[in-house]
Amino acid sequence: MRLIGIDPGLRVTGFGVIEKHGPRLDYVASGCIRSDARHNLPERIATLFTGMRDIIATYAPETAAVEKVFVNVNPQSTLLLGQARGAAIAALTAAGLPVAEYTALQIKQAVVGHGKAAKEQVQHMVTCLLSLSGAPAADAADALACAICHAHAGLGAIGLGEQSQTGYRTRAGRLLVPGRRQ
Amino acid sequence: MRLIGIDPGLRVTGFGVIEKHGPRLDYVASGCIRSDARHNLPERIATLFTGMRDIIATYAPETAAVEKVFVNVNPQSTLLLGQARGAAIAALTAAGLPVAEYTALQIKQAVVGHGKAAKEQVQHMVTCLLSLSGAPAADAADALACAICHAHAGLGAIGLGEQSQTGYRTRAGRLLVPGRRQ
Repeated sequence: MRLIGIDPGLRVTGFGVIEKHGPRLDYVASGCIRSDARHNLPERIATLFTGMRDIIATYAPETAAVEKVFVNVNPQSTLLLGQARGAAIAALTAAGLPVAEYTALQIKQAVVGHGKAAKEQVQHMVTCLLSLSGAPAADAADALACAICHAHAGLGAIGLGEQSQTGYRTRAGRLLVPGRRQ
Repeated sequence: MRLIGIDPGLRVTGFGVIEKHGPRLDYVASGCIRSDARHNLPERIATLFTGMRDIIATYAPETAAVEKVFVNVNPQSTLLLGQARGAAIAALTAAGLPVAEYTALQIKQAVVGHGKAAKEQVQHMVTCLLSLSGAPAADAADALACAICHAHAGLGAIGLGEQSQTGYRTRAGRLLVPGRRQ
């Protein structure tokens, strides 16, 4: 099962593609779609939409998860973020993908083990869980975390208690690797 | 030149298609795309996006105009509206259409002659300008008004002063039909 996670934004939209083989998760690809702030809004939406379409065509995921965005204190920013998220979801549904939504809290809970984890902890856990040689950029890490959360939800295993059944355990947001001294 | 105007919304997105032949504007089609509030957000975005795609394929407009949405007092509504608008713009740009944006103020200014016009005045003027037998529904009227505004902007004729050059004049927001007693 191949999953794509999306962390939507008008300036930067992060994406992360992983594969789930039973309890094991394999990294496939990750990165960002950036839109030029000097362009007008329809052009930026077009950049984001065609970028999404290209990524979906390239990596052919079977299911998608999009981070639920929080309402910003600045209403204008909320509106811009909403438009980016709408375009990203449109690209996914247009490709026939089922789209799940998770809050940042749910994603952190699933990946780090608690909802108040710092960005660095998310990056660290994503690096460990997918056996990456280096930490991905923050936007890509968030998108990969979203995909990991979706993989666990599909297993019916969200939350720290169930996570340990999927092959790894965490303590204070750090991965416990069996046999390695913590 | 065939133009489409869009009044975006998650519950109801209005559309209006007109044709510009020199100073004359002809009505082609108008209506609404409705999404079911009982469905989840990705499904509603999909309904809106595929609805937009079908309308574009059916009426083959050459250029598009989308009403700029105002920031709602309720941030959650702003976020929902933004997502609908993003999906609508994505559908237009994916079809290769250039997309212009106009504020409600600009649209009312172009159609009624002043920016504070009531919804009924917009409906009335749209009915007159396009020689319709009856007033279109509010969402469709707003979308048609957006298309009319775009047609005038294309002529370099926004604002009441210039409008009279395009074949009609308004007084206090009502159309002055030459030869008819006002």
